[in-house]
Amino acid sequence: MAELTLTTFDWVPAAPRGFVRDFRVRWALEEAALPYRVASTSFDDRAPAHFAHQPFGQVPWLTDGSVSIFETGAILLHLGGLSERLMPNDPRGRTEATEWVFAALNSVEMASLPWGMSKFMGHPTDTAAWKFVDDFLKLRLKHLESVLGSREWLAGSFSVADILMADVLRVVDGFNGLTDSPACRAYVARATGRPAFAKAHADQLAHFAAADKARGA
Amino acid sequence: MAELTLTTFDWVPAAPRGFVRDFRVRWALEEAALPYRVASTSFDDRAPAHFAHQPFGQVPWLTDGSVSIFETGAILLHLGGLSERLMPNDPRGRTEATEWVFAALNSVEMASLPWGMSKFMGHPTDTAAWKFVDDFLKLRLKHLESVLGSREWLAGSFSVADILMADVLRVVDGFNGLTDSPACRAYVARATGRPAFAKAHADQLAHFAAADKARGA
Repeated sequence: MAELTLTTFDWVPAAPRGFVRDFRVRWALEEAALPYRVASTSFDDRAPAHFAHQPFGQVPWLTDGSVSIFETGAILLHLGGLSERLMPNDPRGRTEATEWVFAALNSVEMASLPWGMSKFMGHPTDTAAWKFVDDFLKLRLKHLESVLGSREWLAGSFSVADILMADVLRVVDGFNGLTDSPACRAYVARATGRPAFAKAHADQLAHFAAADKARGA
Repeated sequence: MAELTLTTFDWVPAAPRGFVRDFRVRWALEEAALPYRVASTSFDDRAPAHFAHQPFGQVPWLTDGSVSIFETGAILLHLGGLSERLMPNDPRGRTEATEWVFAALNSVEMASLPWGMSKFMGHPTDTAAWKFVDDFLKLRLKHLESVLGSREWLAGSFSVADILMADVLRVVDGFNGLTDSPACRAYVARATGRPAFAKAHADQLAHFAAADKARGA
């Protein structure tokens, strides 16, 4: 197997630590016990070489031998093809995991990202714009609550879809947005209680802590 | 090949016509010249059978024989596997198209959807919340402009990634959001000028017009 290299920023401010998107890839790599190394790209100075790998100047990207892949969803589908611990091997199981990968990102995070950013920025909540954002998320959570009330994981067994959905929902949970969604909360607890989550989370924090030390912060 | 059936709403209000998400699937099916039929589900009364196919009560879903798939992104990747007109057949080409499928939805539409909804709802534009949403989209368009300035289609040849990206961008263009992005505008014109776009668009409008007639509207 070709060497897998995950690239993330060399440093980020304190607030996003533990949530930088390389986390989702680290978690998957740890679940699958795939060997990988972590490389860094400058946060302060985003060079043309960075944009050649990630056209929006973000992280992460993954290289698998000579192939370079950006977008966390695409990276996780790629890793799903490398390990049955991340995605079932049969066509129907792969299809089911794939639709839930998109659902996590496009049906739930599409609603939770504007919601979470408004919370984080402290935007006023007495506006029509906020009500729209809040209602949008609540509607999605209502339907997701029905799904998660009757299954342990989204696509049969644990898969990359759960990595994405749980990572999306733990942000909502962090802003107390799951108080009316007990099945979603239990699901987040179940997913984030996995040893691979803890390892990936500790590794990301350690990566950025080492950068502080190198900067003399 | 098993029969492909695309399910959409039986009727929708006037505003979203031409933009209901079955459009992206129709466009792909027309590009690939795959035979398919269109089925309807009630817009007014979303029954348990609807949620069994689409857990968020939305449309579309696609059935391919006994397999039922929701989420437009997952449906388009599935169709990409059925036709080289929608996705290259080699692993590297498939990876490239897949990353751009996610980029269209997660890097661009994640920014354009809140922007477009605020425009559509007429939310005030003198707020910090609006500035955040507007700046977020502008940053993504700036980087996409660089990409589209030097290539005709996102992943080598025309693919499902272009169907998604062009459909995302035409909404922004409709609210005059591409005035500083000439390469993005030219790309939208190039994509929407394809015969399969016109056919899919006319078919969706005809589908809902027939529903008006049946309702005696």
